Amino acid sequence: MTGTEQSTTPQPATPPAAYTPTDRTVPARGAQKASYDRELVHSILDQGYVCHLGFVRDGAPVVLPTLYGRVGETLYVHGSTGSRPLRMTGRADPGLAVCLTVTHVDALILARSAFHHSINYRSVVVHGTAHEVTDPQERRVALDALVDHVVPGRSEDSRPANAKEFAATAVIRLDLHEVSAKIRTGGVNDEPEDLALHHWAGVVPLRKGYDTPIPDPDLAPATELPDYLKTL
Amino acid sequence: MTGTEQSTTPQPATPPAAYTPTDRTVPARGAQKASYDRELVHSILDQGYVCHLGFVRDGAPVVLPTLYGRVGETLYVHGSTGSRPLRMTGRADPGLAVCLTVTHVDALILARSAFHHSINYRSVVVHGTAHEVTDPQERRVALDALVDHVVPGRSEDSRPANAKEFAATAVIRLDLHEVSAKIRTGGVNDEPEDLALHHWAGVVPLRKGYDTPIPDPDLAPATELPDYLKTL
Repeated sequence: MTGTEQSTTPQPATPPAAYTPTDRTVPARGAQKASYDRELVHSILDQGYVCHLGFVRDGAPVVLPTLYGRVGETLYVHGSTGSRPLRMTGRADPGLAVCLTVTHVDALILARSAFHHSINYRSVVVHGTAHEVTDPQERRVALDALVDHVVPGRSEDSRPANAKEFAATAVIRLDLHEVSAKIRTGGVNDEPEDLALHHWAGVVPLRKGYDTPIPDPDLAPATELPDYLKTL
Repeated sequence: MTGTEQSTTPQPATPPAAYTPTDRTVPARGAQKASYDRELVHSILDQGYVCHLGFVRDGAPVVLPTLYGRVGETLYVHGSTGSRPLRMTGRADPGLAVCLTVTHVDALILARSAFHHSINYRSVVVHGTAHEVTDPQERRVALDALVDHVVPGRSEDSRPANAKEFAATAVIRLDLHEVSAKIRTGGVNDEPEDLALHHWAGVVPLRKGYDTPIPDPDLAPATELPDYLKTL
């Protein structure tokens, strides 16, 4: 928004550019890598497909991979109404304590020293309380977000959930309040006295992107590959 | 091993071909996708770079991405001696309850119906108790495994940890007892009545592999790219 822009309609409050650090989101070590920048957090979340959702069951941790979607400052996770974490959320009052983590591995870092081997990565960790979404309109928005998270724009080019499917799907929400990102970028950080060693050192980037889409064998005649898949 | 092979030295007992399912490793839903096959579990673990390690801190779940290595039926995780989960493991007696999850996302599944959108994935979930490794020889083996997990054979082509680095690194172990794999493969599972819809449906495979290695600018003269990186 520019300084000269004018608006006569009420605008939603602009959230601050960063999340407020808390005891849980300031790492005991490696704090120099932590970031609370909202745009960075959103970009890491939006580029992932699967999050790892942690919760406590009978006193022990459980970490499950699951799809997710983001709408503004809210993450949505869905699943069968019979699945354990979703049942637990529904039962839990006032909600279920969760930790939701999204990680991208970007490159392998091969140092001359074993100690300095590492990876380049980007991760977001969200702490909070998950609540079951019961409002039908918010549930629709959440399910669209989950489909659009797989491929942006896809929810408009698919048959919406019918009443039976809608009833069989539980949705939980987790607001983005207690959030941090961690990132490692760049190259090798060897000790100066190791630089003369004749071990190869460098960065091995992991390939990103998509291979050619494979059409379903039962595709209706004359169904073309949509543009949003050509530009993925 | 062939039937005619003979050995006069004691061999370690061959572990059973599958892990024993438990209440925690049989999903409430989707049990048809769960597998306890040991070779499958190993292959999923060995192809990952980062696991998501879950533990409970002050009653709430924490899920952190971290590197890992496997030696037989044991997973190793390492970190600074000052990092929280590693400190907690050292303090905890008899160990720290953890859940360690590794997930590969292989393809996007675009169905005609929003409801049947999915991903192809392979995941392993390990429940158990993590213990700090104090035996120096096991610590060495674990640190080699962590480096070799990034690139097989790499630990022999790097400078081993010196005494100071060794002392600064904490290692925890988690044995593979309570383990399950979940997999989705194949194509679109739309309802028969949706097949005539003109939405494109199919599989979008995610690219796997490596881009060209980027040598460190300070590489010692005449240091060639090793063969194990040419064949990655």
